[in-house]
Amino acid sequence: MSILIRGGTVVTASDTYQAEILIQGETIAAIGEHLDADGSEVIDASGCYVFPGGIDPHTHLDMPFGGTVTADDFESGTRAAAFGGTTSIIDFCLTNKGQSLREAISIWHEKAKGKASIDYGFHLMIAEANDQVLEELEYVVAEEGIVSLKVFMAYKNVLQADDETLFKTLVRAKELGALVQVHAENGDVIDYLTKKALAEGNTDPIYHALTRPPEAEGEATGRAAALAAMADSQLYVVHVSCAEAVKRIAEAREKGWQVYGETCPQYLALDIHSLEKPDFEGAKYVWSPPLREQWNQEVLWNALRNGILQTVGSDQCSFNFKGQKELGRGDFTKIPNGGPIIEDRFGVVYSEGVHAGRISLNQFVDIISTKSAKLFGMYPRKGTIAIGSDADLVIFDPGATRTLSAKTHHMNVDYNPFEGMKVHGEVVSVLLRGSYVIREKQFVGEAGAGEFVKRAKFTRP
Amino acid sequence: MSILIRGGTVVTASDTYQAEILIQGETIAAIGEHLDADGSEVIDASGCYVFPGGIDPHTHLDMPFGGTVTADDFESGTRAAAFGGTTSIIDFCLTNKGQSLREAISIWHEKAKGKASIDYGFHLMIAEANDQVLEELEYVVAEEGIVSLKVFMAYKNVLQADDETLFKTLVRAKELGALVQVHAENGDVIDYLTKKALAEGNTDPIYHALTRPPEAEGEATGRAAALAAMADSQLYVVHVSCAEAVKRIAEAREKGWQVYGETCPQYLALDIHSLEKPDFEGAKYVWSPPLREQWNQEVLWNALRNGILQTVGSDQCSFNFKGQKELGRGDFTKIPNGGPIIEDRFGVVYSEGVHAGRISLNQFVDIISTKSAKLFGMYPRKGTIAIGSDADLVIFDPGATRTLSAKTHHMNVDYNPFEGMKVHGEVVSVLLRGSYVIREKQFVGEAGAGEFVKRAKFTRP
Amino acid sequence: MSILIRGGTVVTASDTYQAEILIQGETIAAIGEHLDADGSEVIDASGCYVFPGGIDPHTHLDMPFGGTVTADDFESGTRAAAFGGTTSIIDFCLTNKGQSLREAISIWHEKAKGKASIDYGFHLMIAEANDQVLEELEYVVAEEGIVSLKVFMAYKNVLQADDETLFKTLVRAKELGALVQVHAENGDVIDYLTKKALAEGNTDPIYHALTRPPEAEGEATGRAAALAAMADSQLYVVHVSCAEAVKRIAEAREKGWQVYGETCPQYLALDIHSLEKPDFEGAKYVWSPPLREQWNQEVLWNALRNGILQTVGSDQCSFNFKGQKELGRGDFTKIPNGGPIIEDRFGVVYSEGVHAGRISLNQFVDIISTKSAKLFGMYPRKGTIAIGSDADLVIFDPGATRTLSAKTHHMNVDYNPFEGMKVHGEVVSVLLRGSYVIREKQFVGEAGAGEFVKRAKFTRP
Amino acid sequence: MSILIRGGTVVTASDTYQAEILIQGETIAAIGEHLDADGSEVIDASGCYVFPGGIDPHTHLDMPFGGTVTADDFESGTRAAAFGGTTSIIDFCLTNKGQSLREAISIWHEKAKGKASIDYGFHLMIAEANDQVLEELEYVVAEEGIVSLKVFMAYKNVLQADDETLFKTLVRAKELGALVQVHAENGDVIDYLTKKALAEGNTDPIYHALTRPPEAEGEATGRAAALAAMADSQLYVVHVSCAEAVKRIAEAREKGWQVYGETCPQYLALDIHSLEKPDFEGAKYVWSPPLREQWNQEVLWNALRNGILQTVGSDQCSFNFKGQKELGRGDFTKIPNGGPIIEDRFGVVYSEGVHAGRISLNQFVDIISTKSAKLFGMYPRKGTIAIGSDADLVIFDPGATRTLSAKTHHMNVDYNPFEGMKVHGEVVSVLLRGSYVIREKQFVGEAGAGEFVKRAKFTRP
Repeated sequence: MSILIRGGTVVTASDTYQAEILIQGETIAAIGEHLDADGSEVIDASGCYVFPGGIDPHTHLDMPFGGTVTADDFESGTRAAAFGGTTSIIDFCLTNKGQSLREAISIWHEKAKGKASIDYGFHLMIAEANDQVLEELEYVVAEEGIVSLKVFMAYKNVLQADDETLFKTLVRAKELGALVQVHAENGDVIDYLTKKALAEGNTDPIYHALTRPPEAEGEATGRAAALAAMADSQLYVVHVSCAEAVKRIAEAREKGWQVYGETCPQYLALDIHSLEKPDFEGAKYVWSPPLREQWNQEVLWNALRNGILQTVGSDQCSFNFKGQKELGRGDFTKIPNGGPIIEDRFGVVYSEGVHAGRISLNQFVDIISTKSAKLFGMYPRKGTIAIGSDADLVIFDPGATRTLSAKTHHMNVDYNPFEGMKVHGEVVSVLLRGSYVIREKQFVGEAGAGEFVKRAKFTRP
Repeated sequence: MSILIRGGTVVTASDTYQAEILIQGETIAAIGEHLDADGSEVIDASGCYVFPGGIDPHTHLDMPFGGTVTADDFESGTRAAAFGGTTSIIDFCLTNKGQSLREAISIWHEKAKGKASIDYGFHLMIAEANDQVLEELEYVVAEEGIVSLKVFMAYKNVLQADDETLFKTLVRAKELGALVQVHAENGDVIDYLTKKALAEGNTDPIYHALTRPPEAEGEATGRAAALAAMADSQLYVVHVSCAEAVKRIAEAREKGWQVYGETCPQYLALDIHSLEKPDFEGAKYVWSPPLREQWNQEVLWNALRNGILQTVGSDQCSFNFKGQKELGRGDFTKIPNGGPIIEDRFGVVYSEGVHAGRISLNQFVDIISTKSAKLFGMYPRKGTIAIGSDADLVIFDPGATRTLSAKTHHMNVDYNPFEGMKVHGEVVSVLLRGSYVIREKQFVGEAGAGEFVKRAKFTRP
Repeated sequence: MSILIRGGTVVTASDTYQAEILIQGETIAAIGEHLDADGSEVIDASGCYVFPGGIDPHTHLDMPFGGTVTADDFESGTRAAAFGGTTSIIDFCLTNKGQSLREAISIWHEKAKGKASIDYGFHLMIAEANDQVLEELEYVVAEEGIVSLKVFMAYKNVLQADDETLFKTLVRAKELGALVQVHAENGDVIDYLTKKALAEGNTDPIYHALTRPPEAEGEATGRAAALAAMADSQLYVVHVSCAEAVKRIAEAREKGWQVYGETCPQYLALDIHSLEKPDFEGAKYVWSPPLREQWNQEVLWNALRNGILQTVGSDQCSFNFKGQKELGRGDFTKIPNGGPIIEDRFGVVYSEGVHAGRISLNQFVDIISTKSAKLFGMYPRKGTIAIGSDADLVIFDPGATRTLSAKTHHMNVDYNPFEGMKVHGEVVSVLLRGSYVIREKQFVGEAGAGEFVKRAKFTRP
Repeated sequence: MSILIRGGTVVTASDTYQAEILIQGETIAAIGEHLDADGSEVIDASGCYVFPGGIDPHTHLDMPFGGTVTADDFESGTRAAAFGGTTSIIDFCLTNKGQSLREAISIWHEKAKGKASIDYGFHLMIAEANDQVLEELEYVVAEEGIVSLKVFMAYKNVLQADDETLFKTLVRAKELGALVQVHAENGDVIDYLTKKALAEGNTDPIYHALTRPPEAEGEATGRAAALAAMADSQLYVVHVSCAEAVKRIAEAREKGWQVYGETCPQYLALDIHSLEKPDFEGAKYVWSPPLREQWNQEVLWNALRNGILQTVGSDQCSFNFKGQKELGRGDFTKIPNGGPIIEDRFGVVYSEGVHAGRISLNQFVDIISTKSAKLFGMYPRKGTIAIGSDADLVIFDPGATRTLSAKTHHMNVDYNPFEGMKVHGEVVSVLLRGSYVIREKQFVGEAGAGEFVKRAKFTRP
C-alpha cells in the first residue's frame, strides 16, 4: 500500500521546498518531483505545509495526583493530541520508593495498552537512587528503551529528591547513555512559603504563583546545571517558565555544558494575572512552575529562537474544573496542578511563533518535533521527513483561522486555558506510520494503534 | 541527462539518512529508496557522506592589497575551492570613494568572467554612505542581487568607515532587505599601536598580533551590534577570532538583536604563537584580526555549537611567501594580510569539528553550507539537498585520512598554513548543478562554468 | 582665630561619631571630646550632622553653548552651591582646536576670578590630541594642577572627538597621572537620528530623548572602557544615566580595569516623561544624555551603593526657560542642553538616598564629597573631616524638611527641575577653610574668596 | 591614665593623615595636631602607620573536629592574633541538634574565659531550625548580643543543613536583625565524589581538592544568595575561594540583594598545587573549600578592590602536622580541615595587598577591620580610629620586612602554611582598649583580659 502526497510544501527543521512524498507501508520511500503515483492513494496537499508529526516530549496521562487522577487517559489524550498534529508523545512513568522499576514501567505500559492512537514512549521518574535502582537502570535503558530519567527538585515530601539522588542519577545516566530531566524549583523554599501563605489565610489560587517565585526556579535550574557539569553528564530542564531559568541555561551552554531546556505553550502565551480570575477560575491556570509576568514571554521566545531552549512540551496534565480543580477552594495547595494543553501545543506555537513572526517555519518544526526526537533517541525514525523515517506527517493549512475552545476541543476536560484565543493555521490531516489518524479534520484512528517506541541512547544533537 | 547517486548517507543541516539522490539536469529531482536508475549515470557513494556543496561566504580573489594582488584569482581560487568541497563562494567586491557602485561591480564581474569553475556571488564594500551610494543600493539589491554590504571598522585611512557610514548602511540595508557585514576591529586604536610599535623598532610579524588586541575586536563588535539594534537592522560579523567578540554577539542575541557571526578555520585551529616562527615565517600567519591565544579556539567551537556563531568562512586572501609576504620584512605593516584557506576550510572544519566530536554532522553542514545560503539569500537554491535545489553535492569519504600541504594543495600559493596537519575525511567527488567538477579527486570542471548567483533579500533564518 | 563645633555628629566616608571639631585658621586642628574651647568661637551643632563640604565634580558655569551662555556664572553658581552644602566645584574649561591650552585655561581663570565664593578647580576639555596639545599637557598637569581631561564622544561636528583622540589622551594621561573623562554617547548615531526626526517634523522636546537611545550611551561607555584598558589608563565616565552604561562599567571593573562613573541627581530622581510636559515645559528637562525610563533610577542607586558608580555630579548648566530654553521651540536641537542642579545636588542625594534608605550616611559622604576629592587629586585637603584638612564643613539638620522651588533657590535661573519636591534635611551653616559662607541659612561669603585648587596626580583610590 | 601616640600616620577605612591620638582610659579621646601630652604616656609612632586593630571575623579556637581538637585554644590563638595585629575575633560557637542554644553558648563562653587576651564575639551555628531554636534565637540576639548565625551547606551527615533550615534561618534573621553566614559548597556532590575517590584508591591529600570542584562552591553560593533574596534577608558567604563564587556574589549585588562575602589569606596567596607536596605535606594545605588554581587569586583581589567581597577572615583552625594532619595518611577524608592563619592574616593582606599595589591603604583597613565591625555589629566601638571608639590600635612599620615561619610564629602548631614567605611591614605594638598587648614586638597582654563583645543588630553598611 502506498500513498502519494502532492502539492504540498515540505517543511523540516532546516528545509522548506515543494515536493511530493511517497509513502510505502509505514515509512517514507521517496521525495521528489513527478513521482510515480501508480497504485498509490493520492493526497492533495495544495496550499498546505507538510510537517513531520509533532512530538510532545512531556505529558502526564492517566496520572494520579493529590488524590485524584488526570481527566485524560491515553485514549482521550492521544486522540486529542492527534487532532492537534502530534503523532508521538513521551509520557512520564511515575515510580515510588521501594518499587522496582520494572513494576512501575509495567503499570505504565498497562495504562497505554489498547488505548493510544499515536506512538508513545516513557520517561522514568527516579524517586531514589539506591544501588538497586541504579543497577536496574541498565535494564531500563537497554531493554525497555527508556532513555530519559526525571528527577523532581520540588514537591517536598512527595516527589522531591535531594541533590545526592540527582547527582547519582546524572552520573549513572552518563554511563548508560540516558538524559536526565529535572523539574527545577527549590521545593524547600516553596514548602515554607506555601505553609506561611496558608497560615496567613492567603488561600486563593494566585497564592500558588506568589509562593513559587521565579528565583526558586532560577536557583534550581542553576543547581541542576552545575551538578550536570560536575557529573560530566547531560541535562534537560522541563517546563522553563521564566527569565531567571533561561539565564542559567544560557550560561551553562556558553560554558560548553550539555544543558537543554523545554518550555510550554502556557508560558509562551499566558501570564500570572490569569490566576486572579474571579469565581475561583484562577484555579484553571495553576501550573508548577506558575505562570509568570508577561515580559517573560518574549524572553522565552527569544531563547527558543536562539537555541537556548530547544523544545516546547505541553506538560499535559488535565483536571476538570468541576470536581477536580475545585478541590482547592479555600486552599490553593489542594488544586491539582496542570492543565489541558496536549491538543493545542502544536497550533499555539505555530500561530504565536511562525505566524506572529517570532520564529521561522524551520525553527517551528525543530521545536515542535525534531529536537525532541533527537534529544530523546527517536531520531531518525521520528521527527523529520526523510527517506526511511516513519511516515508521521501533518498536513497543515496555514491560511485557516480558528478559535480555541473547550466547546470544540477533544480533550476530556471541561475547560480550555486558551478559551477564545484566535489562532492561525489548522491541522487538516495526520498520518501515523502511513495511516490516517486524522483525515480532513475527522478522527479515523484507532485506540491501540499507537506503538511504544523503544528509544536509542543519548547522543549530542 | 540524469545522475543517480547510490549508497551514500545523505546529510543536511538537520537530517542524516540513507538514500539515493536523483539529479535531473541541474537540480535534485528525487530522493528515495530504490529510485529508478533507467538512463541515469550511477555514482556509487557507498561508505560516503553526501553533503550539500560547501558555501564559502568570505573570499577575496584577484584582489589588490597594499600594492600587490592576491596570488589566487577566480580561476585558481575556485578550482582549489572545488577540490576542497566548496561549490559556491561569495567574494568581496571592493569599491572606492567616488566610484559608482555599478562600475565597481562590473569590474568584479570582469574578474570572475570565464574563470570561475564554481558558482559565486558578491558582497559589496561600502566605502562611504552618501546620498548617491544609498540611492544606488536600490539597484544593487534589486537588479544585481547583491544583498550583503560590507563596512570596515579598521584599516584607518584606507578602508575604514566611520560610525555614521556604518549606521546609514544599516538603516538602508533594513529598507532594502540587505545584510550588513562588518570587519570589527577598532582601527583608530590599532593605528596608534602599530605606529608606536614601529617607532619602537618592533617590526617582526608577531607585532602584527600584539598591536591588534582582542579588546579592539570585542569593542568594535559590541559597537556594531549596538548600531544594528538602534537601526533595527541585521548584522553579520565576519571573521570572529576571540572570546571578547563572541561575548558581544552572544549578548546581542540574548537581547533579541539580529546579529550573526562567522569565524574561520585559522582561528579554530591555529594560534598566535605561529607568528613567532623564525626566518620571517611568522608572516605566513598574518591575518586581521590576528590569531589569538589557543584557549579562544574552544570558545569559538562552543559558539558554533550553540548557534552564537553561524558560519565558517575562509577569508581566502592568499599571498606567496616569496615576493609577497616578504614585502613586510623589517616592517610588519607591509606584510599583506591573509592566507590561503579556501581549499581546506571544508576539510579542517569536518576533521576538527565532526571527527573530533566538537559538532555534529548536521551542525557541520549547517555551518559549512546551509546557514550561509540562508543568511545570504541563496537558499533554497543552494545550501541543502532538497527537491528543486541545485545539485551541488559533495561525496565525502569520512574514513580517509590525509595530510595538508602546499605540495599537494591546488591553490596558487607557495605555502599552506596547515602544512603537515593530519585530517580525517576526504572529498571524493563534487558536482555543481549536476555536473562533475571533481571526479574521483580529479578536477574535471571548467573555468567559466561557474555562474553568478543573484541572491534574494534577507529574511531571518 | 579658632572655631569649635560642638554637639554634632561627625560623618565621614567611613565613620559616624559624636565629637567636637576644633578649627585653627583654615584647617582642622583637633577632633575630640571635651576639647578646650578657650578663645574659640563655638558653634552649636546639636542635633546636626557635620559633613565634609560637598564637592561637585561636574559644573559648567559661565559657559557658552549654542549661541547663548549659561544663566549662572561663577558668582551666582558658587553662591548657590554653597547654599546647598557644596564647598568645592570642578568646572569644565572648554578649548578649541588650534587654541593653546594655556590660553584656554587663562580664559577660565578669568571667568572665576573675583567671583567664586567657594573653592574650585578645572577639568580641561581635549578637542584634539596633536603633538602640541600632548606636549602642553605636561605643563597643564604639573604647573596648573589640572589633572582631569575631558573628551566628548558626542556632539558631532561640534565637540565630538574621534577614537584616535580619545586613545591618545588616555595614553598621555597615563604618562602624566591624569584622569580622562568622557561624555559617552555615540554622536554619529545621535546625529543621524536627530536629523531624521527633524526631517519627519518631530520637533518637540521629547524627541531630544528619543533620538538619544540608551544603547548609544551603553555603546560609547563600553568603547571608552575598552580603550582605557588597551591604553592601560584610567577613565571616568561622566553623567551615567542608564542601565546599559552601568552594565559596561560594572563589567570593566570586574575585569580589573580602572573605570569610574558619575551619575547626576536628575537621573536619580527624574524620568523621561518630564520631557512630555505641555507648553514646551519639556524643554526644562533636556539633558544629554537624556532622562530615561524610571526603572533606571534604582539601577543607578544600586550602582552607587555597590561602588560601580562613585560620585554624583550636578552637571550644572543652567539656562532660563524664557529666552534660552525657548530658543528650541519648533526645533528641539536648538534647546540649550542642561539644567540648574548645583544647589540641590547635595540635598536631593541626601533625601532620596539616605533618608529613603537607599544608601548609608557614610556612603552619602563618599559619593557627595570624598570620592571626588580622591579621584580628582584634592584629597586629603578636601573631601573629609580629618586633622590637617581644610575646614570645609557643612552643618546639616536631618530633621528639617523643605520644598525645592525656583522661588526660593539661589541659582540665577527662572525654574527648578525639582520644583515642588519635598526633601528631608537642610543645610544650616557652611564653612570654607574655617570661614562661614553660609551662616544659619544666610549667605555671608564673599565673591572672590574661593580659591583655585591645584590638584595632585591621579592615584587609584 | 592617658596615652598619646605621636608621629604616626593615622589610617582609617577612608582617611590617611598625620595626627596625634590621645587615649583616655579605654577609648580614644582626641585626635589632633599638638595635643596636650601632660600626664600622658607618649608613644612614638614616627614612620609608622596607626591602624585600627584588626578584626578577624572567622576563627575556630578550641574546636573539636573529626575526633581531635584544634591545636590552638583561646589562649594561644588570641595571643598569636595579637602578635599579628588583631585585637578582636569572632569565633564560631558550635551547636548540636537537640542542644539548647544557651547551653551551646555557655560552653563557648567557658572556652574563652580566662584565656582570651583580645576581645571576642561568637557566631552561632544553626544545626536545625525547629520552633524551639527559632524561638530561642530572640534571646541569643537580644541578650547575648550574638547577631550572626552560621549554616553549613556542606559536610553531609555531620554539619550540613538542608535548604529548609537555611531558609528558615534567613527569615528569622531578618526578623531579629541577624546576619546569616554560609559555608557554601554542595555537600551532596562532595560526599559522592569523596566516596568515589576513596573507592578508586585515590587517598592522597590532592584528592581533597579534586573532590570539591569550584562549581560545587559556585552552585551553593548562588543558591544561598537566591534563598536570601526570597527571604528578603541578609547573607554573608564565608571563605570564598574561587571565581565561580565571586561571580554569584557579584550578580546578587548587582540585583540589589544584600549579599556579602569573605575570603581568606590562603586563597589570596596559595594555590592547589601545594596539596601535591610530597611526604604527605600536602595535608598542611587542606582547607574546605580547597585551594584553587592560581588565577583565582587575582579574581579575589579584584573582588576585594571592587567591594564584591568585603572582608578577609583567617578561618583559623589549626592542627599539628604530627599527630593530627597525619590522621589522614591513606585517607584524605581523615585529614582535619583547616590551618593556622590567625597570626598572619593581617600581615599577608598588607604585604600582598597594599605593598604589592593591589589595594589601597584605606581599603586594607576596611577589609581587615572596619567592614567586619560594621557587618557584625561591633561598629563604632571597634573597627576604626574615631572619638569614643575603643583604643584598639596597631602601630605598624611599613618599612620592615620579615619572613613568615613556624619557627618564629606564636601559634601553638608545628608548621606555617606561609613558611618562608617574605612580607613587607611589621606590627610593632598593639593596644587593646588603651592597654598594651604587644609592646615593641613583645607580648605584654594577659590571658583573660579580652572581653566578650555583645554586638548590635545588623544594619546595612
